[in-house]
Amino acid sequence: MELWRLLYPLRTYLIVSGTLEKPNVMTADWVIPLSFQPELVGIGIGKKRYTYELIKRGKEFVIAVPDFKLLKDVWIAGTRSGRSVDKRELLSLTFTKSKKVKVPSIEECLANIECRVVNEIETGDHTLFVGEIVDVSFKEKVFGEGKPNVKAADFILHVAGNEFTSDKGERKFA
Amino acid sequence: MELWRLLYPLRTYLIVSGTLEKPNVMTADWVIPLSFQPELVGIGIGKKRYTYELIKRGKEFVIAVPDFKLLKDVWIAGTRSGRSVDKRELLSLTFTKSKKVKVPSIEECLANIECRVVNEIETGDHTLFVGEIVDVSFKEKVFGEGKPNVKAADFILHVAGNEFTSDKGERKFA
Repeated sequence: MELWRLLYPLRTYLIVSGTLEKPNVMTADWVIPLSFQPELVGIGIGKKRYTYELIKRGKEFVIAVPDFKLLKDVWIAGTRSGRSVDKRELLSLTFTKSKKVKVPSIEECLANIECRVVNEIETGDHTLFVGEIVDVSFKEKVFGEGKPNVKAADFILHVAGNEFTSDKGERKFA
Repeated sequence: MELWRLLYPLRTYLIVSGTLEKPNVMTADWVIPLSFQPELVGIGIGKKRYTYELIKRGKEFVIAVPDFKLLKDVWIAGTRSGRSVDKRELLSLTFTKSKKVKVPSIEECLANIECRVVNEIETGDHTLFVGEIVDVSFKEKVFGEGKPNVKAADFILHVAGNEFTSDKGERKFA
């Protein structure tokens, strides 16, 4: 057994890197808040990932929060590499200009968290990119009260492989 | 708005520190897998917490995975400090000997992940303790197939304050 699976199911996010002209997006479960003040978050990215290369170079990333409606895109973003294919051709996602970073946001997502890398920590076969949140955008009906409205959204949790769940119950993809 | 709330709801865990004779336990949402090989996990702990002191000293911790049935204990562990009270007197949890670390496990939990600290990273007002998993225990019916069985358990997600949800739907405490 892979022992880290005991922490699952975990929330699933989309990590955007690159630029508006040439964006890349991958699915990631290894995402964590790290500090209240300054407002820091961390993302654990495998060192062989194309996203790893792009963040190493650009020093910015966006964490986009998908709704269950985007599960097909989440699946594609998590199983195809942007090194060999332009994922925009496979995805039904709209990349839009972010407020403060060159990395684009995703229009269909519930929230987009714009981050600048302030630290890179080697943790075994992954790197934890620590980002300071420099700006955000979000759907008013989901986060307008300063906390998630679970009635207004269907947050995705990854169970294993193609199994996902949410607080609306279990569903499979593919 | 506290911007890290855009990552919520997040899974909630219990962090055990101290010893079997004098254990302490706190509730934590800031927990992340960090590496496949070696098997590393990270926990973000506020620097004023009693748990911070205990892990700094003992260099070990256990991540225990509570079921929704333990929500009352999760709430108490997250709102009272072990500095001023022996939490065992308030909790209905059973602390038992772990396999490899001095920090105890919690019998009622779905899983216990025993960790030794291999790195401590300053991230703003928190410290990320990076732990190598040295042993685990878990309920066979929940993790026996090497991945979470969402039908056999009711994993807790923290929404905000006293609002919690799980893949069985939303519920409040207190």
